[in-house]
Amino acid sequence: MALTAERVLSIQSHVVFGYVGGKAAVFPLQCLGYDVDVVNTVHFSNHAGYGRSGGTKASAGELNAIIESMEFNELLAPTRLLTGYVPGAEGLSAIAGLARKLKERRPEMIYLLDPVMGDAGRLYVAADVIPVYREMLPLATLIAPNWFEVETLTQVPLNDLASLQRALRILHDEYHVPNVVLSSIPLKPWLFEALPQSIRPTDDSEYLLCISSSSTPNSTSIVHAQCVPLLPGYFSGVGDLFSALLLAHFHPGTQLCGKEETPVSYAASHALSKTHAVLCITHQHSETLPEEERQPTDDEKDASEPLRRTRRMRGRELRLIQGQDIIRGTSLKDCRRLQPWEAFWDLKA
Amino acid sequence: MALTAERVLSIQSHVVFGYVGGKAAVFPLQCLGYDVDVVNTVHFSNHAGYGRSGGTKASAGELNAIIESMEFNELLAPTRLLTGYVPGAEGLSAIAGLARKLKERRPEMIYLLDPVMGDAGRLYVAADVIPVYREMLPLATLIAPNWFEVETLTQVPLNDLASLQRALRILHDEYHVPNVVLSSIPLKPWLFEALPQSIRPTDDSEYLLCISSSSTPNSTSIVHAQCVPLLPGYFSGVGDLFSALLLAHFHPGTQLCGKEETPVSYAASHALSKTHAVLCITHQHSETLPEEERQPTDDEKDASEPLRRTRRMRGRELRLIQGQDIIRGTSLKDCRRLQPWEAFWDLKA
Repeated sequence: MALTAERVLSIQSHVVFGYVGGKAAVFPLQCLGYDVDVVNTVHFSNHAGYGRSGGTKASAGELNAIIESMEFNELLAPTRLLTGYVPGAEGLSAIAGLARKLKERRPEMIYLLDPVMGDAGRLYVAADVIPVYREMLPLATLIAPNWFEVETLTQVPLNDLASLQRALRILHDEYHVPNVVLSSIPLKPWLFEALPQSIRPTDDSEYLLCISSSSTPNSTSIVHAQCVPLLPGYFSGVGDLFSALLLAHFHPGTQLCGKEETPVSYAASHALSKTHAVLCITHQHSETLPEEERQPTDDEKDASEPLRRTRRMRGRELRLIQGQDIIRGTSLKDCRRLQPWEAFWDLKA
Repeated sequence: MALTAERVLSIQSHVVFGYVGGKAAVFPLQCLGYDVDVVNTVHFSNHAGYGRSGGTKASAGELNAIIESMEFNELLAPTRLLTGYVPGAEGLSAIAGLARKLKERRPEMIYLLDPVMGDAGRLYVAADVIPVYREMLPLATLIAPNWFEVETLTQVPLNDLASLQRALRILHDEYHVPNVVLSSIPLKPWLFEALPQSIRPTDDSEYLLCISSSSTPNSTSIVHAQCVPLLPGYFSGVGDLFSALLLAHFHPGTQLCGKEETPVSYAASHALSKTHAVLCITHQHSETLPEEERQPTDDEKDASEPLRRTRRMRGRELRLIQGQDIIRGTSLKDCRRLQPWEAFWDLKA
């Protein structure tokens, strides 16, 4: 394990039970040698998927009081910044101000902005955070949106290759984001058809695609991609774990072999492989639970019997602790390396 | 590393920067294979030793809202409970109610109560928490007070062997605490004189003594002890780290070799050795810092130049991340095993 002198300032949600937000991100970063300063934007009993949760959101005033004291005490000196779920625009604006200050003070600070807004077509933050995120994008070194968040930020529905190209161009050119990692986009036929042979899956299972795109000074971006099998059912905190691992493995100073790998495709390969391996042991574990702990989603039954949903959620919490050797492992078995997608920008939809 | 199916509910303070309270306890427990549910009793920028900190305390109402939602969602099923810093009596009473309920529901649950109240003669909680802690003591499987907290709980000033015996008797017999670990008591001459030869240090350095005492059904308790060199200056979070490690290594079902070792002396040996090793690398690191980062305590100068104190504190934050191999290591080099103190109860002061 590399022991770095690096310090991450992580700003996202806190839940008492289970692994989303900071609970999914901080432990992996610590295992990989980072000191982590942990700002909690909410303090909840559990994630929202359970249907009921207790706790409070940190107000913008509370966040600012913490930030000001850290400033006063000279404790605001992270080498990396990671921001995730912030529930409202006022709080997010406080974080935006902090990010701006830190970036001005230390331009080489690596900022991974995870614009956590929603998933699968559903927004789970107040809509007024969207313009704040757009303003923050130019501060980011890399962003890790899911496909819905890309659509929300760029206002481009991703339904063919041309729209994917357009969305990436907007993020790189209009919002000046140097590195974009689209962590998981369903591998629909239009996307499958566009993929180079080297990346296409060879069986009929369902797959997700991970895409990294790094802008270059004088041309279109360098694009890499890799597929990963979709595991059945929904797991919470996956994006938060992925982003933490992406940040942990991102080493922009490192010499890599030309177009075969960029610092961000390298980091995405490790994040993708480790996240998938943790998901596999989580899925395996959930399969061993008694039947009442793993009743499939059924909106009607879930509504009439809330514990049905609660128990399913509990059985699908990420097995981070049991998977810590996966997270720590520097030599990955089955590393799913992102492959160059050289013709990406030449393709016409 | 043993991967357990055990889950710790940890209830203590949270700081953004540095390692006290939950930040000192949760990561070690996770490294040692425990899932940890994390309730934060305060959300501060940094520990109080910096002189200034920003943030808020969780109210009893906020704590109860979280506890109730966890109850509703069937998420209150820890195999172990760890409670530390809770700033006020109302919040502590909420925690006491929770501890009582959990213990009734699962009598074999291991409860490590760390009655965090103060240090070195100074109380840093509201005085009205003291009677609440006294009421909670009978719920505990083990407690880990420092000498000042023993004095506060028992109202016995520890100034000779008779008073130490009296204090332990009060904790075991009046408060029905089965296991007491006195993590660090200065090895004053009266204590040195009382120690068996096997435990006495052989040089003139300053030492602290760690004492474990386990009650037995039909007689006085079994006492073990070990010395550890005192490192210069003050480090924060040491007690919180020690308690977490004590809990992590406490395995009451395990067969041990009679009076040579009890489950609690075994756990204290590991907690003491690992905590000391982490302190050593923390001390070594602080010695490498530039001079302005390690100005010795001087109340007058510290008052006129607050950053003097801040910088000293920052340079003395526990090196938990850099010491994670120490925490994880199952085979300890230089394990300071607590030794039987067989004549403890026979000694007259």
